[in-house]
Amino acid sequence: MRRIKLVVEYDGTNYGGWQLQDNAPTVQGCLEQALFELTGTHTRITGASRTDAGVHAKGQITHFDTESSIPADRFSYALNTHLPPDIRVQDSSEAKEGFHSRFWTSGKRYSYTIYNKKHASALLAHRSWHVYRDLDIEKMQRAARDLIGKHDFAAFCATGGSAKTTVRTLHDVRVERVDDCVIIIVEGDAFLYNMVRIIAGTLVGVGDGDLPEDIILQMFETCDRRIGGVTAPPQGLILEEVFHHDEKPGWVL
Amino acid sequence: MRRIKLVVEYDGTNYGGWQLQDNAPTVQGCLEQALFELTGTHTRITGASRTDAGVHAKGQITHFDTESSIPADRFSYALNTHLPPDIRVQDSSEAKEGFHSRFWTSGKRYSYTIYNKKHASALLAHRSWHVYRDLDIEKMQRAARDLIGKHDFAAFCATGGSAKTTVRTLHDVRVERVDDCVIIIVEGDAFLYNMVRIIAGTLVGVGDGDLPEDIILQMFETCDRRIGGVTAPPQGLILEEVFHHDEKPGWVL
Repeated sequence: MRRIKLVVEYDGTNYGGWQLQDNAPTVQGCLEQALFELTGTHTRITGASRTDAGVHAKGQITHFDTESSIPADRFSYALNTHLPPDIRVQDSSEAKEGFHSRFWTSGKRYSYTIYNKKHASALLAHRSWHVYRDLDIEKMQRAARDLIGKHDFAAFCATGGSAKTTVRTLHDVRVERVDDCVIIIVEGDAFLYNMVRIIAGTLVGVGDGDLPEDIILQMFETCDRRIGGVTAPPQGLILEEVFHHDEKPGWVL
Repeated sequence: MRRIKLVVEYDGTNYGGWQLQDNAPTVQGCLEQALFELTGTHTRITGASRTDAGVHAKGQITHFDTESSIPADRFSYALNTHLPPDIRVQDSSEAKEGFHSRFWTSGKRYSYTIYNKKHASALLAHRSWHVYRDLDIEKMQRAARDLIGKHDFAAFCATGGSAKTTVRTLHDVRVERVDDCVIIIVEGDAFLYNMVRIIAGTLVGVGDGDLPEDIILQMFETCDRRIGGVTAPPQGLILEEVFHHDEKPGWVL
């Protein structure tokens, strides 16, 4: 038995998220089905991140165990012939001894795209959150800087999360204007449930003047989710990259 | 009766092209239906460019005549409430006396996106042509320069075109690498049927070494479509912008 690691890109529009469920097709389900068609064996595929319905990924990392003799680097080509065009395996390789896509994760980078114009974009309908009010990008950039570092992100967490601690470390939070879009890039060691979407909704609240410029500091202080911005809709979010430790970490978050 | 001008953006993935047809939903059909729901009157909408199935537009220009008293700039908001999210009216305004979206056209700018990586992109599946062979961008840029100017583009025309002359003028042809994409920008006074897609297919043929570097000059000389590259698939093409004369032109191409 050997362990194979996959880098997977997907358009989440037509899926009920990453994780298997009864009511909707999922990315995990499509990958497991493709692997079954390829190898003839039902095999569990584990993803580093359980992205929600409508959320996209450029660099989801997954792993699975197999007895198949297919060379590791050929799995990408072989699986893609069994997958719909909105899911593509970008790379496949032999995983290190004991590698686990979730437990070995050392960090993740997400992007969140806001389309900031009078009317929504047809071409970015499933890739962005339409905000028609003018956004003050400099206010957003200043508030974003408050997020960087190690903080208690309890106020940035949807109810229903199961994390033992709500302390997380963000290494980078950037806000950039690219054509008609405002793009938020967030990189950190780990994320609470809906954390990036609450960050995006809160920064937009600062940018359109609905929320005070020090709202991030207030949220850290009060741990009160209710004073922050809305949870931005899923379609603006992309899991850009997952980072991994070189060996099994001594701790698991 | 007054004439209204619309700027329309659409994702062509789910449409049989711009123009009304019996077998598939079309962008023109959706707009005319939305206008009917809004005004109660069946109204013909004329587009500057009859884009093919799967082709996208950021700046299609259209016009229609109406007795409605809706202020010109409100049509965009009102129509968008009756349109699917993959068609968005970006602007509406009162048209000049005698304006005609097609006959007044003085030029158009298109972009064509090639995704140039080992595996296709899930997120750009409906927005790009996947070419996995390495493309030599400098060769493509040199060949692109041969296209600029006034030439007989007979070899760049699909059969089935109805143009009286195949002489056209291209003002600009650029080839740029943006991340994993190669983007071709073409601007000209008017275009033959499939002209941009044949240009894209021919430049890709030069870039991957399948076609000689002077193929454009050979095509001008021989007027032979068969020596050029393939017709690139529709989903990489975007009608970016339509330019118009300030008044009724004395000639019509």
